[in-house]
Amino acid sequence: MTGIPFANLLEPGTGILGAGTGSPGVQRVTRHLSELREAFRDQAAVERLLAEGDPLLYEVYNVPVPEDPGELQHCTSVIQPGAVGEEFFMTAGHFHARLATAEVYLCLRGRGVLLMQDRAGEVVAVLELFPGAVSYIPPEWAHRSVNTGPEPLVLFCVYPGDAGHDYGTLREKGFAKLVLRDGGSYRLADNPAYR
Amino acid sequence: MTGIPFANLLEPGTGILGAGTGSPGVQRVTRHLSELREAFRDQAAVERLLAEGDPLLYEVYNVPVPEDPGELQHCTSVIQPGAVGEEFFMTAGHFHARLATAEVYLCLRGRGVLLMQDRAGEVVAVLELFPGAVSYIPPEWAHRSVNTGPEPLVLFCVYPGDAGHDYGTLREKGFAKLVLRDGGSYRLADNPAYR
Repeated sequence: MTGIPFANLLEPGTGILGAGTGSPGVQRVTRHLSELREAFRDQAAVERLLAEGDPLLYEVYNVPVPEDPGELQHCTSVIQPGAVGEEFFMTAGHFHARLATAEVYLCLRGRGVLLMQDRAGEVVAVLELFPGAVSYIPPEWAHRSVNTGPEPLVLFCVYPGDAGHDYGTLREKGFAKLVLRDGGSYRLADNPAYR
Repeated sequence: MTGIPFANLLEPGTGILGAGTGSPGVQRVTRHLSELREAFRDQAAVERLLAEGDPLLYEVYNVPVPEDPGELQHCTSVIQPGAVGEEFFMTAGHFHARLATAEVYLCLRGRGVLLMQDRAGEVVAVLELFPGAVSYIPPEWAHRSVNTGPEPLVLFCVYPGDAGHDYGTLREKGFAKLVLRDGGSYRLADNPAYR
């Protein structure tokens, strides 16, 4: 026996995950625009938004679990509605550090796009996010969540205990595609800064 | 790259998981009382119910995913309301075949009890299930879901790709505790048949 069962409490409307029975606690991580400024194409729009404040892009409510293979990390992600110029608010995106690990999302609220690309960045995959969508990110795919709607995008996420995060590869290369406003919807465009 | 991203569609009110974008399909597995008759204490009540028909106890909507360590099995479980004598409808319960693997549940509807015990059957743990409860079953715990409420109990479940199922140990030993009706609520009782 390697651990004691516990529970946390998820508010599906807000995505807030609070400590429940026997919980080891829940960590809230926030990401503001100033921390992701280089991820967006329109740097003039970044500067304008930062001059007005430093908007919250997303929060993660993370349950601390041992980083061992048979365990399961789990969290909620809440991505705010908004855009930087034409580009929707989004997460930084990452590969898993142990590349051969999958992730499952259950969307609880909002509307968005799950943008994925393979290690070489040659293959891009997109899945639409809406309440009830259960998305499977197979092993070895980078993933980024983009809020294309008018309300918060709330995702419940589960991944292997030892998956870890590799943010550096995408910080260096970028994503091959951008998700841009297109009237009331979205369109994909090539990322001119993609290396 | 070991697989192509895909999505399925979950109806949170019913727990039905339907095939979505690129989905490999969803398997529906049903368990009726006749398949679990020995799991219940009150065998006279089992016989009475079987004489009237063979009630559905639960369904699992399972997404077929490769049985490899970095993958993630995921499914919904829908346990019907009802009882066999004093004992609530419940799942068969199992250990994972690869014992050192966890499972995460998100309860979407209903009310119930997640009953767990360690390999030796000496330690029992219970977590209450209700909408928004995120339950963590650490590696090495057997688990059974019990519907203690008046409506279907709907759970979204994620576990490691190579976890597998060991039903035999509990079919042999039983669970140390029973979950019984107690007015409008439930109580735990020792299982006299527990070995």
